[in-house]
Parts: sequence; C-alpha cells; structure tokens
Amino acid sequence: MSTKLSQQIETLAKKAKLASREMSLLSTAVKDKALKDMAKALVNNQAFLMRENKRDLQYAKTNRLSSALIDRLTLNEKRIKAMADSLLEMVKIKDPVGEVIKTTKRPNGLVIKKVRTPIGVIGIIFESRPNVTSDCIGLCLKSGNAAFLKGGKEACYSNKAVYDCVIKALKSGPIPLDAIQLLSSTDREALHIFLKMDRYVDLIIPRGGEGLIRFVAEHTRIPVIKHYKGVCHTYVSSKADIGMARRICINAKVQRPGVCNAMETMLVHKDIAKKFLPVMIEDLKQCGVEIRADDKTRAIVKDGIKKASEKDWYEEYLDLILSVRVVDNTKQAIDHINTYGSAHSDAIVTNDKKEAAQFLKAVDSSSVFVNTSTRFADGYEYGFGAEVGISTDKLHARGPMALEELTTYKYIVEGKGQIRE
Amino acid sequence: MSTKLSQQIETLAKKAKLASREMSLLSTAVKDKALKDMAKALVNNQAFLMRENKRDLQYAKTNRLSSALIDRLTLNEKRIKAMADSLLEMVKIKDPVGEVIKTTKRPNGLVIKKVRTPIGVIGIIFESRPNVTSDCIGLCLKSGNAAFLKGGKEACYSNKAVYDCVIKALKSGPIPLDAIQLLSSTDREALHIFLKMDRYVDLIIPRGGEGLIRFVAEHTRIPVIKHYKGVCHTYVSSKADIGMARRICINAKVQRPGVCNAMETMLVHKDIAKKFLPVMIEDLKQCGVEIRADDKTRAIVKDGIKKASEKDWYEEYLDLILSVRVVDNTKQAIDHINTYGSAHSDAIVTNDKKEAAQFLKAVDSSSVFVNTSTRFADGYEYGFGAEVGISTDKLHARGPMALEELTTYKYIVEGKGQIRE
Repeated sequence: MSTKLSQQIETLAKKAKLASREMSLLSTAVKDKALKDMAKALVNNQAFLMRENKRDLQYAKTNRLSSALIDRLTLNEKRIKAMADSLLEMVKIKDPVGEVIKTTKRPNGLVIKKVRTPIGVIGIIFESRPNVTSDCIGLCLKSGNAAFLKGGKEACYSNKAVYDCVIKALKSGPIPLDAIQLLSSTDREALHIFLKMDRYVDLIIPRGGEGLIRFVAEHTRIPVIKHYKGVCHTYVSSKADIGMARRICINAKVQRPGVCNAMETMLVHKDIAKKFLPVMIEDLKQCGVEIRADDKTRAIVKDGIKKASEKDWYEEYLDLILSVRVVDNTKQAIDHINTYGSAHSDAIVTNDKKEAAQFLKAVDSSSVFVNTSTRFADGYEYGFGAEVGISTDKLHARGPMALEELTTYKYIVEGKGQIRE
Repeated sequence: MSTKLSQQIETLAKKAKLASREMSLLSTAVKDKALKDMAKALVNNQAFLMRENKRDLQYAKTNRLSSALIDRLTLNEKRIKAMADSLLEMVKIKDPVGEVIKTTKRPNGLVIKKVRTPIGVIGIIFESRPNVTSDCIGLCLKSGNAAFLKGGKEACYSNKAVYDCVIKALKSGPIPLDAIQLLSSTDREALHIFLKMDRYVDLIIPRGGEGLIRFVAEHTRIPVIKHYKGVCHTYVSSKADIGMARRICINAKVQRPGVCNAMETMLVHKDIAKKFLPVMIEDLKQCGVEIRADDKTRAIVKDGIKKASEKDWYEEYLDLILSVRVVDNTKQAIDHINTYGSAHSDAIVTNDKKEAAQFLKAVDSSSVFVNTSTRFADGYEYGFGAEVGISTDKLHARGPMALEELTTYKYIVEGKGQIRE
C-alpha cells in the first residue's frame, strides 16, 4: 500500500476524531441552524451540482454502466430539492443527544442516569446515489457525530460537489469542519486503508450491494452495522382473509420489487391453498410476476409455473419473480423463514390472534408483521423521520436505523461523598 | 488445525444455535425454576466440586502459578454457597425478554412495538474463576440465550465439575441442554476454532486479562464486547470539599486496588494543590500507596515521590501505586482523561454544579462520577442485580453489562390490511 495515501487518510481520520469531541458538545440550535444552511446551499448551487453530476454521467455512459445505475446517479432540480428537504426534515427530529434514558436512585443515595451520547466518528461507505452524501452528513451532524464518507468512483464528481457545497455553507459557523470528511480517493486501495482506521473510526455503515457490504465486513476490525440482503416472506395462514391476503401480497411483491423489504417468497397453508393460490397467482401474473413454486403449488395451479429449486428459497430476486411454497402448518412456515430468510422482514396474514402471537415470537427477524405488507419496514414509515439504513445484525441496532441508532450512552453518577464499603 | 477438533466444535456450535431458538421461547417461570434447581445442585454437590477443584489446585502448585491466581481458583464451602446465591439472585431480576420498549401508533393505523428479544448464542471466554461458569450459564439462561463457554486450562476440572452439576440438575426439565455448552479443549487451537464460529455464535464476551481480550478481539469476526483495562481518574477541582475529596480518593485507590474501577491517576487543580496535596499524599502513604507525580506535585510535596514518566499516565497499575498530576483548569483535566484514560470510569470532586456539568458532558467514558468513588462502577452497585462484565466499547453496550445487555430487540408491526401507497 502507498505510504503517502495511508498517511493522508490517517491524518484525516485523526482530525475527524478530535473534531468529534467538539461535535458532541454542540447545542441543538447550532446543529439545526447548520442543517438549514446546508439545505439552502444545495438549492442555491443547483447549477454547479448538475454540472459536476454531468461529468459522472458522461463517465457512466462512456463506460456503459447500466441504465438503473445511471438513473440512481442522476441529479436534477427535483432531486436536489428532495436532498434539501431531507435536511430540513432532520431539523424537526428530536435531538437524541443528552436524552436521559433512565434514572435510578440507589439506597445509598447515589443518583444514576443513563444518558444518550454521540458515538464519535461514523464511517459511511456507499455506492452511486449522491444524495447519500448530504443525508449522511446531516444525520451524523444532528446526532453529534463526525462523518467520514467514502463514495464510489462512479459518483465522485457529484459527491465532491455536494460536499463542497456543504463545507462552504458551514465555513463561517461554529461547526468544526474536520468533523465532515469525504475521501477523495475512491479506489479499493483507499478503502483498504480506511478500513484499518479502527483507532479513529467508531462505526462503519456500508450502503450498497451485497458485494460491497461483504467486502467491508470481512476487511475491518471496526464495528460494522449492515444488512446483506432482504429475503422477505409473507405467510398466508389457513385463518387468513383471502381478500386482504391478496392485496397485501401484491403490495409486498409488486409496489417496488427492487428494494430490500419487497417479498421474495410466499408461503401458503395447505388448507387454504386450493382456494387462495389460483386467484393469487392470477393476480401476480397480471402484474407480470414470474412464479417459481414447489410441487404442491404446481399441483394446484398447473399452467406456466416453473419449479423452484433449493437455491430459490435463499434468493433475493429484487425483481418481478416470486418463489411460492405450500406448508403443512404455521410451525413449518416459521422454520422455513428462520432457515432460508435473511432475518429482515417477514409477515403473516391471519385472523387468529394466538397464531399471530406464535409467529411474532418465533420468527427471528428484525421486523415481523401481522396483516400488513413487509414494504412498511422503513425508518420513515416507523416514524423515525429519517433512515441511515436497515440492520439485520443483532448487536447495537436492529431493523430501520435512524438518529437514536447513531448514539450510545454513558452513566452519570451523582453523589454526596459516598464511598464503597 | 485439526479437522476433527474443528468438526467437533462446529457440531456443538450448531447445536447451540438450534437450541437458542427454543431458549428464546421459554417462560420466565421455567427459567426461574431451572436457576433454583442449579443452585440446589451446586450446594448438594459441594464435596464433588471441591474434589475436582483440588485437581486444578494441584496442577497450579506443581506449575508454580501465582498465589493470586491460586486464590481466584480455589473453591470452598463459602464460595460454592456464593455461586448458588448468585443464581438465586437472578431469579429475582426481571426477565428482560418480551419487554415492550416502545409502542408507536402511526397515522395509517399501524401499531409498531419495539420488543426485547434474546440475542442467540453468547460465547464466554474466561480465565481462572470457576464461578464464572455458573454465573454465565445463569445469566444466559435468564435472558433466553444459549451459552457457549470456554474456560482456561488452569480451571478445567473445576469448570467441568460445575458444568456437570448444572447439566445433571436440568436433565429432567424442559431446558434444551444443547443450549449450555462447555468446550472441553482448553488450548489455543480450540480457541482459534471457536473464534471462527461466526455462523453460529452471535456475540463473544471475553473475561480475563488484557492479553486474552486482545487475542480474542483480533482473531474473530464475531462481535466482541469488552474492556481492555481501567485507567480511572479522580479530578479534585479547586471547588472541592477537601475532606470529601480525601475520603473519595482513598476509597477509589485503596479499598480494592486490583480491580478495573480503582483509581490509577489523581488530577488536582493548581489552586487547591498546596492545601490538598500534602494531606492527601500523607493519607495515601499511610495506606502504603506509592506515588508517581509530575514536577508541580513534587514541588509541593518533596519527600519520597518518584517522578512520573509519560508511560505512567497510560498505566493500569492494579496495585498500590498512584500517578498524580497538577492541572491548570478543568479543561486540562478533561483533556488528560480523554487522552490517557481508557474510557472506563472517571470522577470529579467539586461543589460547583456548572463545573460538574461540564466534566460530565465532556469526559468520554462509560461512567462519569461527581463527588463519589469510581469504585461504584459495577452492575450490582447500579442495581442491575448481576453483572456479565463492563464494556468500554461504545456499540451495543457501554459500562456495566447485565441481563438487558444480553438482549436485542425486534419490531412487531400489527395492521388491519394496510398496504404501502
């Protein structure tokens, strides 16, 4: 590895760490003012942002990147406005720093408070979407953390432009600018070096495809919060309302198939299968969904259904494809989900409260749903006001992550001279 | 590495993972009954436990292990009774599993509950003290987790004896015995293999010396919660009550110097130094404490005080040695603690509320104290009823860790057919 690049990155990380202490002491008013200034700067610099974005788009076209990626990469007036609005939304969210989570008074008179505090330096490693730059700077700022960002090569001009706008907007204010870092080197070597900064970076949140996330998790000793994929299930119980089940399954599969909380597998109780599957599969086919099913399903609906392979049960299609299986009972549905799922978001449709309770308790996923769509697994939908990502890990944060999940806590103990006997 | 040993350990880990699902579903009554049965079994098998413990003590004597280690290793009637009592204490602690942390009702009618759940399989890697075996089995059981233990070679017979007692006591009951595993191989090879079980083990808590903990943290991809050391400070402000400061500092340094929450460095404001240091240092010397101080301290108290080196400020003595420094102001005390400390437990003695607030906010440690002794940084003293360890990490758990820290959460979302627009 290049020693010079190593030293450069270490210097930035060290600066971010020092600045994170100042960040942790900022008042809510100061942070909210900064968010508003940032939002204003983005809107006022639309022309500059779009000009720099064009350079990335040019590169993408020359290198024949996929149209989906080019779409994610593109900045226009509407999207820049949305980035600014997202920062203004953060102003409205309650500042988590300083919240007293719990107070205990001990028999010896000690008063023990568990108080929410920032984590320190948050590393965000992401791909393509330039709005991640402003979103993550905003979220880290509001939660009193320093942000250390590393974007992808494909969006390097756009990310730098957003970063420059933000820094310029904050230049005359009290925010320590060292607390906002964007790594200008976008290659793997820089990433490798960044992942070794465990002395300075307290947490990494990778945002992108499974390949990027696995690479990050496997090459660092810094704690990583992540989700690899969302293999989400909807289980239609024998006690389901068929009309409701049809609406929920269509929503979970079709409303936005390319996202992690879309349904990938539908499980159906055998006692409702004959009545439910023909109408449901007809609905799905009308929406252009390809079905891959087990033999029991194919015995009921015979036309145009591919046989699912063992591999299909593990698959995150992110597309208009659905695997379907008939199960003997709720226990088998739960076991299927715990075996093949990704512990992301799974739903049951049932009118039986006892069955729902069994499912909710036994399915080991970050979000479990009764009589609604897995598509609701989302920070905005949960009322968090913002989302840094979704975690399928179990430590620190699980499910949609927002400002609270960017904090830790400390114990504050107040005495009057007590000593330990 | 031996393939056979690898396969053995993987089989155990896989069994623990499967059993952890059953554990997560157990009722509080069932878990409490098991804790009582375990406590009874320990007391009823005193003779057996002490006989097996003798084999470890024999080995320790033959290999001339330190008398401190032999003391920690020794089981007697009183200590076995204490192990049983500790399990009975856990019966009294509230079961954290199933607790609803927060309920939100959304505008669309969805009810979102954040519910506490077990983590899964907890790996505990520990040295010498055989009571850790029963404590950790009890804590994991009460929190609905599977426990996978690996003790040290020096206590292998004692640990196995405790484990055998527990397993025999639970044999006829509903607890899945696969959820309690003790690795019989105690060597480094077994540890290496164990650390690779990231598919099955959800969290590792190492308990022991800094060497063991660093080894664990550096050789696994499983999340580790730990503290390396406790370099704890007491800062005596210019606004301190001198009598109170003397009592607090003596308690923090002398009451039990060999533990992680004992004071290692005393910081004194320059305006109180001339009045405070002579009496304080006299107190400390009378208790047999060796002082290593900066030049400003040595200008005030001239006799028999060694000069502190830069290295001393980082040192966890775990002994009757104290480093002492005079500081110009509170800011300098805070900077000293954030620079040289280990983010464990740090105290200020002051009658000035504003100064106390500044210290509490800016010192980045898991526990911060005003007008009391750092020795109170402890799960029992905080009212948790039990302690798995203390974390100086910032992710997931910080400070004393008890049952709640052995849990995660999931979101339970209840709808009436809502779909996402």
